[in-house]
Amino acid sequence: MTYIKPKILSGFMELLTEEQIVFNELQDKIKKVYESYGFLPIDTPVIEYSNILLAKAGGETEKQIYRFTKGDNDLALRFDQTVPLARYVAMNYNNLAFPFKRYQMSKVFRGERPQKGRYREFYQYDIDVVGDETLEIEYDALMPKIIYDIFNQINIGKFQVKINNRKLLNGFLESLNIDNKQEILRIIDKILKIGSSKVKELLLELNLNNDQVDKIIEFINLNGSNQEILNYLNNLDINNELYQTGLKEIECVINYLKNSNINEESYTIALYITRGLDYYTGTVYETYLEKYPEFGSVCSGGRYDNLADYYTDKLLPGVGISIGFTRLFSALMDKQILDFSKKTILDCLIINMDNNYQYALNVSNAIRENDIKVDIHYSNKNFKQKLKFANKIGVKYIIIIGEDEINNNKVVLKNMITGDQVNDSLDKIIEILKKELSS
Amino acid sequence: MTYIKPKILSGFMELLTEEQIVFNELQDKIKKVYESYGFLPIDTPVIEYSNILLAKAGGETEKQIYRFTKGDNDLALRFDQTVPLARYVAMNYNNLAFPFKRYQMSKVFRGERPQKGRYREFYQYDIDVVGDETLEIEYDALMPKIIYDIFNQINIGKFQVKINNRKLLNGFLESLNIDNKQEILRIIDKILKIGSSKVKELLLELNLNNDQVDKIIEFINLNGSNQEILNYLNNLDINNELYQTGLKEIECVINYLKNSNINEESYTIALYITRGLDYYTGTVYETYLEKYPEFGSVCSGGRYDNLADYYTDKLLPGVGISIGFTRLFSALMDKQILDFSKKTILDCLIINMDNNYQYALNVSNAIRENDIKVDIHYSNKNFKQKLKFANKIGVKYIIIIGEDEINNNKVVLKNMITGDQVNDSLDKIIEILKKELSS
Repeated sequence: MTYIKPKILSGFMELLTEEQIVFNELQDKIKKVYESYGFLPIDTPVIEYSNILLAKAGGETEKQIYRFTKGDNDLALRFDQTVPLARYVAMNYNNLAFPFKRYQMSKVFRGERPQKGRYREFYQYDIDVVGDETLEIEYDALMPKIIYDIFNQINIGKFQVKINNRKLLNGFLESLNIDNKQEILRIIDKILKIGSSKVKELLLELNLNNDQVDKIIEFINLNGSNQEILNYLNNLDINNELYQTGLKEIECVINYLKNSNINEESYTIALYITRGLDYYTGTVYETYLEKYPEFGSVCSGGRYDNLADYYTDKLLPGVGISIGFTRLFSALMDKQILDFSKKTILDCLIINMDNNYQYALNVSNAIRENDIKVDIHYSNKNFKQKLKFANKIGVKYIIIIGEDEINNNKVVLKNMITGDQVNDSLDKIIEILKKELSS
Repeated sequence: MTYIKPKILSGFMELLTEEQIVFNELQDKIKKVYESYGFLPIDTPVIEYSNILLAKAGGETEKQIYRFTKGDNDLALRFDQTVPLARYVAMNYNNLAFPFKRYQMSKVFRGERPQKGRYREFYQYDIDVVGDETLEIEYDALMPKIIYDIFNQINIGKFQVKINNRKLLNGFLESLNIDNKQEILRIIDKILKIGSSKVKELLLELNLNNDQVDKIIEFINLNGSNQEILNYLNNLDINNELYQTGLKEIECVINYLKNSNINEESYTIALYITRGLDYYTGTVYETYLEKYPEFGSVCSGGRYDNLADYYTDKLLPGVGISIGFTRLFSALMDKQILDFSKKTILDCLIINMDNNYQYALNVSNAIRENDIKVDIHYSNKNFKQKLKFANKIGVKYIIIIGEDEINNNKVVLKNMITGDQVNDSLDKIIEILKKELSS
């Protein structure tokens, strides 16, 4: 017989079980933070009508999308969770309470050319707050607080949320009498990657004069404490409305964070953050890990004026963030800073000396009733090989049952790390296990 | 502007948030049971190479699959979790400890003609134990025990696992000198739907004589206690090896369950259960809800001889079960027996009389630190409308903050169900909340 070589597509992540355990633990931590703020779960279909998913798309997105026909239907796989959210809110408008806070943590699909650290199928962990007609600026301020809670929880070192406001930036550009603002924002956004002088060069290639470009470069490179930057921005004395609105908004966000009892080093105004997408209209965020700036932003998002204008006449402003978790996890694996030593979910494995499992079965049922994860190792191998199996799966506690134990109505509990061994009644052993596992 | 009507494809499930909360709670319960037996998580890609996913497929499966090309690749969406498991085990053979126990709880895709209760995208909650060359029969017995734990947990009434063994059935057919066993098993499998006389009619259309058909009908309709059926099967005195092996296996499974401390009414030998698929070779299971036999089997599975024969020369016998959860959930919704009254994940919502949120922010941070899910309702509406919002989202506790509270460094806690209200210090209120929420 010839075999088909088992393999998966490049650009798709599949983990070994010990890696998947860690992946899921981190996922659960993020979910727990989202839920602690009352975000509600939704789960949109993977497959939708192409005309709905692509209503807003164009260019790159259209090229990357997985699109195909089935029967008479032109279908596509979701490529983000924002478009499905827009469709969902428009569709269920009458059933939702606004501001509507939802999380979705699922896979999205983009047929990009695969390259290191880029995935074609990847998890996004998103939250959004969507308002009906209006949405208070405090929700913009809530996002960095949530990002703080998450990266504090998942414990991968120091991080910083960089915050900007596109109204502020656009207002500033307006004050310089600049028109093609969108294009300029896209160039500015690259500054961390290409540096100031390259940005200057690109800006000069547009219809800008030296003075305008110098002022832009000075503006976006501004640094100092958040208060110093706010003072500077106030002192600039730019009187256009957009600028003043943006300034008020970013001041509100920073003041909120100051009152949020979080480390002040964990957030900063960064006037060069623009988030390339046309989509955003106010506050924008990116998040960087101090030790791994090369990861780029690990959590980004922002405020938008109208979520679902392709599907409904309702005005639905919102603000949200997204963690590209597959990519982040992959990068953390590359750095070898994740601990994959926990190979099993079991707390305890029961090993029989012989193959009479009735006693073992009673033992396992009694233990499991105490919320301890336990299983019997059924095997036709000898005792030594059974011990080897316990070692291989990395379970910390084993219970050994032989003829003596059955006759004396006892069990042997062994700690596989220390080698310590106790022989006692089942009740006592369960007591010991519970104590050890809770410590 | 013309709008695109927001809708999803027929045959795809999308839930309102209050429904999704219940869906996720049930999902978590099932996951917890799987983990309590030490099953390990895996998460295979949604998209795979068509030639790999379809290695074993044919006929109906090929027609139903979502298949398309992207670039040079012939791709397909997974239509079950068994084929990806086979590919996974073959691919990672050297990294796995056998018996390998895995769970996967994800969406699969089948482009069936949509009909009531059938989905094109649906969750399967699967576990399998895969052995290397051999796998002890006790794992066959473990499956109904796990099914028992699950349906006990999710609390939708009485249920019964129907257990059979294909060796027993095939051995019996052999003893009647019958050849086309596969076809007969497929007909027998329909007996619950079409009744005995129709099965008899269909069997007579094959090359069977009256006597053979009568014996088959008598055999598969056998009922009584498990012990009575086992006695009968032993007394039949059929000497072919297949029958005797099957009989020994089903006896082992039943004896194991007898020792498992579970309700004896929850499992029964049912000799007409065959599970149409060629795939299964020994023990087979189906699970029925007593109140809703019309749901059909809500959890099925069985033993197979060789998981991955298309991908590897390793002999990998296994046993597994699967819950088609989207379908089950949908059926339960139809019966209106699910309680969707919990509309929010929040334990407590903070409502401000005015729009000065600084005090509220301190309150919310202090509460959240106590593992209480809390958020501030930011809104430009008046107090009455804020209260209306709290009612609409169905949060049980609200905290009200007005000028008095700020000045006296207190907060008001209100139980929205009883209407009870307390005005006290934050510490005291947190204490009350913790106590109420844990009860």
